[in-house]
Amino acid sequence: MSQYPPISEQLDDIEAARDEGRRKMDWARQHMPILNALREEFERDQPFADQRIGMAMHVEAKTANLVELLADGGAEVAITGCNPLSTHDDVSAALDTHENITSYAKRGVGDEEYYDAIEAVIDIEPTITVDDGMDMVAAIHEDHPELIDSIVGGAEETTTGVHRLRAMDDDDALDYPVFAVNDTPMKRLFDNVHGTGESSLATIAMTTNLSYAGKNVVVAGYGDCGRGVAKKASGQNADVIVTEVEPRRALEAHMEGYDVMPMSEAAEVGDVFLTVTGNRDVITAEHFERMKDGVLLANAGHFDIEVDLDALSDMAVDQYEARDGVEAYEMDDGRRLNVLAEGRLVNLASPIALGHPVEVMDQSFGVQAVCVRELVENGGAYDAGVHEVPDELDREVAEIKLAAEGVDYDSLTDAQTEYMGSWQHGT
Amino acid sequence: MSQYPPISEQLDDIEAARDEGRRKMDWARQHMPILNALREEFERDQPFADQRIGMAMHVEAKTANLVELLADGGAEVAITGCNPLSTHDDVSAALDTHENITSYAKRGVGDEEYYDAIEAVIDIEPTITVDDGMDMVAAIHEDHPELIDSIVGGAEETTTGVHRLRAMDDDDALDYPVFAVNDTPMKRLFDNVHGTGESSLATIAMTTNLSYAGKNVVVAGYGDCGRGVAKKASGQNADVIVTEVEPRRALEAHMEGYDVMPMSEAAEVGDVFLTVTGNRDVITAEHFERMKDGVLLANAGHFDIEVDLDALSDMAVDQYEARDGVEAYEMDDGRRLNVLAEGRLVNLASPIALGHPVEVMDQSFGVQAVCVRELVENGGAYDAGVHEVPDELDREVAEIKLAAEGVDYDSLTDAQTEYMGSWQHGT
Amino acid sequence: MSQYPPISEQLDDIEAARDEGRRKMDWARQHMPILNALREEFERDQPFADQRIGMAMHVEAKTANLVELLADGGAEVAITGCNPLSTHDDVSAALDTHENITSYAKRGVGDEEYYDAIEAVIDIEPTITVDDGMDMVAAIHEDHPELIDSIVGGAEETTTGVHRLRAMDDDDALDYPVFAVNDTPMKRLFDNVHGTGESSLATIAMTTNLSYAGKNVVVAGYGDCGRGVAKKASGQNADVIVTEVEPRRALEAHMEGYDVMPMSEAAEVGDVFLTVTGNRDVITAEHFERMKDGVLLANAGHFDIEVDLDALSDMAVDQYEARDGVEAYEMDDGRRLNVLAEGRLVNLASPIALGHPVEVMDQSFGVQAVCVRELVENGGAYDAGVHEVPDELDREVAEIKLAAEGVDYDSLTDAQTEYMGSWQHGT
Amino acid sequence: MSQYPPISEQLDDIEAARDEGRRKMDWARQHMPILNALREEFERDQPFADQRIGMAMHVEAKTANLVELLADGGAEVAITGCNPLSTHDDVSAALDTHENITSYAKRGVGDEEYYDAIEAVIDIEPTITVDDGMDMVAAIHEDHPELIDSIVGGAEETTTGVHRLRAMDDDDALDYPVFAVNDTPMKRLFDNVHGTGESSLATIAMTTNLSYAGKNVVVAGYGDCGRGVAKKASGQNADVIVTEVEPRRALEAHMEGYDVMPMSEAAEVGDVFLTVTGNRDVITAEHFERMKDGVLLANAGHFDIEVDLDALSDMAVDQYEARDGVEAYEMDDGRRLNVLAEGRLVNLASPIALGHPVEVMDQSFGVQAVCVRELVENGGAYDAGVHEVPDELDREVAEIKLAAEGVDYDSLTDAQTEYMGSWQHGT
Repeated sequence: MSQYPPISEQLDDIEAARDEGRRKMDWARQHMPILNALREEFERDQPFADQRIGMAMHVEAKTANLVELLADGGAEVAITGCNPLSTHDDVSAALDTHENITSYAKRGVGDEEYYDAIEAVIDIEPTITVDDGMDMVAAIHEDHPELIDSIVGGAEETTTGVHRLRAMDDDDALDYPVFAVNDTPMKRLFDNVHGTGESSLATIAMTTNLSYAGKNVVVAGYGDCGRGVAKKASGQNADVIVTEVEPRRALEAHMEGYDVMPMSEAAEVGDVFLTVTGNRDVITAEHFERMKDGVLLANAGHFDIEVDLDALSDMAVDQYEARDGVEAYEMDDGRRLNVLAEGRLVNLASPIALGHPVEVMDQSFGVQAVCVRELVENGGAYDAGVHEVPDELDREVAEIKLAAEGVDYDSLTDAQTEYMGSWQHGT
Repeated sequence: MSQYPPISEQLDDIEAARDEGRRKMDWARQHMPILNALREEFERDQPFADQRIGMAMHVEAKTANLVELLADGGAEVAITGCNPLSTHDDVSAALDTHENITSYAKRGVGDEEYYDAIEAVIDIEPTITVDDGMDMVAAIHEDHPELIDSIVGGAEETTTGVHRLRAMDDDDALDYPVFAVNDTPMKRLFDNVHGTGESSLATIAMTTNLSYAGKNVVVAGYGDCGRGVAKKASGQNADVIVTEVEPRRALEAHMEGYDVMPMSEAAEVGDVFLTVTGNRDVITAEHFERMKDGVLLANAGHFDIEVDLDALSDMAVDQYEARDGVEAYEMDDGRRLNVLAEGRLVNLASPIALGHPVEVMDQSFGVQAVCVRELVENGGAYDAGVHEVPDELDREVAEIKLAAEGVDYDSLTDAQTEYMGSWQHGT
Repeated sequence: MSQYPPISEQLDDIEAARDEGRRKMDWARQHMPILNALREEFERDQPFADQRIGMAMHVEAKTANLVELLADGGAEVAITGCNPLSTHDDVSAALDTHENITSYAKRGVGDEEYYDAIEAVIDIEPTITVDDGMDMVAAIHEDHPELIDSIVGGAEETTTGVHRLRAMDDDDALDYPVFAVNDTPMKRLFDNVHGTGESSLATIAMTTNLSYAGKNVVVAGYGDCGRGVAKKASGQNADVIVTEVEPRRALEAHMEGYDVMPMSEAAEVGDVFLTVTGNRDVITAEHFERMKDGVLLANAGHFDIEVDLDALSDMAVDQYEARDGVEAYEMDDGRRLNVLAEGRLVNLASPIALGHPVEVMDQSFGVQAVCVRELVENGGAYDAGVHEVPDELDREVAEIKLAAEGVDYDSLTDAQTEYMGSWQHGT
Repeated sequence: MSQYPPISEQLDDIEAARDEGRRKMDWARQHMPILNALREEFERDQPFADQRIGMAMHVEAKTANLVELLADGGAEVAITGCNPLSTHDDVSAALDTHENITSYAKRGVGDEEYYDAIEAVIDIEPTITVDDGMDMVAAIHEDHPELIDSIVGGAEETTTGVHRLRAMDDDDALDYPVFAVNDTPMKRLFDNVHGTGESSLATIAMTTNLSYAGKNVVVAGYGDCGRGVAKKASGQNADVIVTEVEPRRALEAHMEGYDVMPMSEAAEVGDVFLTVTGNRDVITAEHFERMKDGVLLANAGHFDIEVDLDALSDMAVDQYEARDGVEAYEMDDGRRLNVLAEGRLVNLASPIALGHPVEVMDQSFGVQAVCVRELVENGGAYDAGVHEVPDELDREVAEIKLAAEGVDYDSLTDAQTEYMGSWQHGT
């Protein structure tokens, strides 16, 4: 048995921490109608009674509402962080107060403690795992394979985690079913389009005290995220320029009314650059050379490799913090190129960043929650391996959200259903 | 051998007709950069030398440019109409002037002549068929199966045609490969979103002399077409209301900022109603009862069954043509409900309608043209049956369009290609 | 006494004409809530009993509803056209049916008959004049000064008319009060921004069968009309370019997110050009030289001098009607520049043009109607000369429109009124 | 002579403060192209040599660039704060470093020191005053009337200051000319529309971690600020509702496509409420009663009296800080109404607020700077009293901004100028 103590035994003023953590959770809960609707259902039905859920996630206010929801549904939950820097101790303490939850998450722990905490979570012998980067799945497969027989399944939130799970699956090394929550339409359309767009642009504005009206905003990549950033920037009266490598996306952006051009041309006219490609080296030395004085460079895509900061650093004659969250690189001709959040995800890594909007996480976590319920109800129907979220679960979350917002819509009549069927499937 | 004469032998003033037809074709050609770029390639390479192409299509100015393009690429072409009412005799005559083309299309012919003309086309013993409703495919399979061995394949433009071909295919009754041109991303994104939206709204405005600013425009159905209509109506300062039956689409419309409600509520507040569902009975008696005086009812979806005109006619105490292309149905309480274009596709069936914009058909026909080229080059690679258009052909058309419009874009570097590969396919 | 006969005595099939004219008027009336609301008031109160109103206006369906409204309010009305080409004989006949109206308007009359008809109108010895180009005011001042003493005042609809009246006024030659209906906020904001924008763009689309998505639309002039055209074109996914001569307007367009550049640069990239400057020679030879093949040139400003057609004609090696309402000018390098509606107002002069939307004229004519009522009620309060429409009349029309559309809004409380007063006028 | 010491003598670590202040000023300067262009002109021409300028303004990074610009143009400048809470000591210290500037501004000073600092500024015997709330003008008129003869004039930035100056002027108590910088088109159109809209919405988003997509955003007041907020919120995919008391503004909002309704109805459906009326008691007890749980209430108008917080406090059964900058008022039925920034200007008073965007202040301060130059060059031409900023100065600032952004535009030809003249001023 792990001797690693829960957060309540690690903090000095546990009472104050719990109150502050609860305050943060309450704010998010005010604006999470999907989780709130599911809470009513789960409190009534107790679907997770007899389940033990092991979680490794970012322990902050939004996630905490998912954790608590699962506990309110009857589960015994043990949780730790999935990144030592993203844990809010106060939220961790507030969670630990819940009679069904033990939280081991603590901010800033070292490597050894980090893995001790994971071990402590595994001590509950989870029947379900919920991951944000597959640390829990990995630890169980590597160190506790004896638990696998009693595990009904797992859910994984992130792109990266799903990617690694698929690699395991390809090697026949994944021994229980895991839902790839990341890829659902509900996440793709709302999180990517609205969440990334709004939060990235607002973070940049509030980090720089600058406005968008009349600015040339260069959006690199016209996938779902790029589409959202372009639309929202245009909605702030920016003149949007799109760069792309896929001709149909380039044409789509062009037909939308945006200017489309290669980055080498965009570099000369852009005022603000946002990379959302998921690729590397999107803005490089040849582009830095052409940029105007005072430009902003930010990334809202994936990793911090979209803007080639090494090259920029090499070219700069001076480099200094021009403002909190803004590093100015001064060229030998006096031009200053301003990089936000060290080229990492601007809506997560800026000093004032708050991550994705609450409503967006509500949708994501709503899918997580119904996936966990699905594992309990029908886990046996899923083979070991990575699974798409079933379409009806995704649709259910949309229905819950619409109901919570008071938005009514139509249903097909029998005659209409029959007509659609006859049409789509042939006579 | 069919004795059915080509159009040149059927018209009185063939010279005048040819000139007028050519004038119409020239206008479209000015605005068809994709076909113009392909013409340069095809005139040089003569990919269709030795091919005989049998076509049954709407013979009007836009289509005629596709027909001529195939002939310019070396094909011997015989064509007739796919609907006796859509043929423009002058365009048919202009086509018939081309040394490689014989056109049998004539407006307003009866059933017997219609099929005689198809037979006349088949007399050339086509090696390729191009259809807009699969009349040519059907006639060959039913009456000329002996030709099938020498046919490399076909291309079908319409949703309906593809639907019927799939049914044949399911019954193993389709004996050569046919490309389903209708379903490509190039068509779905541009034709549906931009083409339907712009042309429907402009047709309504120019039929009624009314404006959209401040109007409640009810869009029934939030698929690609509905999305386009909603966006373009909003861009004319309408207040858009969306009705839907699929919760994720309803939620998507809601998150876009539109009002979403059931038709029974929308009926009470709407000023203009546009159905784009592809289903039947979308607006019915219960809705007519609640509508305001003076509303406009139009369909931009599929068939004329989206608005239940029988029910409306039954409810009306009077019914009269309020304006060219507008039928007013007067209720017993004096309210007038105005139906445009008899509930048929408003951008095709209104008296002033011009069909889809030229640029949109340029994209569709561009895909047709490269599909025909693909059949000639690689026809042997395709089994009998319905085939999706290969992704690289669709992409090629996008590339051609971008080049024609002078829009440059980026390419992946080798390092980027490798990075994407490593990412997507696992280590 | 003039012997010039009313329209009823000039047409052969007067019954059919009346029915058709009435049908046209009825369509407009369905969509003129302001005039309909005023009709209720005027029928009840008969404000114009004992008044004789002489009118010279475009006699078509929208205007006819104003004419009839005045007659329904008790006036004896005599009317003729203000332009021999704008009269619809059927509408004129339908008006002439009204017991209080005599209509002398007939399409296509020669000069002599045109002025005979004006004389016939003046025979009723008008107490009020309503003009669309000040013909009535001019004829009375020049030839019937003896009538002026009994005239309470007039109303003038057009910019041109107001301009000429102001010139008369400056020379002390205007002997009764006339309201300048043209300049009110209600007209400027709605007619110019929404009416011109929507109707011009829809007319161009339906004349050319082209779409706006992805097109470079060059808007010359960023006044109210230009603002409307730019906004609506952008709302159809055009990429809008603005040209201006006034730096603050240029900056306003720039801050709105549009590209701003001189016409000499815009000429090279534009696909569609719309002039809305009210000035001359906005697009000239140096611009024609740079344009792309296939561009559209249209005017939505004022007169047909914004595009220098003489220069274009001189440069062209060929010139022909490419399509109804489109004249192609072919350059010696093969480029074709397409001029719509001969450079005249595209939303009025195109073959399919319908003029301003019904709702927009409803607002304009609503202001006309309350101005006539003001003359009857308070005419003595106005000196001879041109007068702005009193602000409360303009506001009243807004109130009527909002009530008719069922739009509620707030009122100031006494405390709020007091607070605003204290704030704006000092302690 | 005042003995009040400049900031350099009041701070402990003056070096560090200067560096940090300079860093803040430099960031703003990067994005103030108008002031930078004027700096080149002023450094060359030294228009303010021999002038002494007394200033009372918010001493922060943006304003500091105006102060330094005047000093760089040759003026001797003395400055103090116009509000003890808005001063940044580090910026004040950086200013004080300039050889031509003495800064007395210090954060958090008491009343006595505040007025001592004003006295210290007046000690330089200013020839020009620049105010942000007319403290300098007032102190001179009340306590140093002997200086007035040598003062060429002043400039006042704020609405409130202009209001009070107009009251003085009405009483013939203003003894030198003062420009009302607040009212220029450059300020009204850009500051109000773009500045208020963007900064308010971004501040709310980053204070609450919420998004706008699909939210009902209620904008109270449709003046320039309301127009901007509505447009930008709509551009983030909010569904905008407008409340108004003036019917033409209400109609304008309605014709723009927004929902217009009384606050009593909007209260029931709104998710976010923004008041921008400049009036009091816009949201009151009757509205709080109808609101949904979790709504946000913010003010972007003027004073903190638009939302009736006293009433709200009375109604609440509990009241607590739900989040930094958010006060939750809990009703007896459990609903929580969240007030941002205590109902004060949300883009100034929120904990993370940054005030107006840099570019917007650049335009405002550009007008200030050319007004000061105008006083030096032509001060004698202006009588004592409040003066509108001459139109050509406002236009000049637009020209400078366009040039700095590299935006070219057209000029009128002689023929066009003549045509406009003939048209507008009569024959």
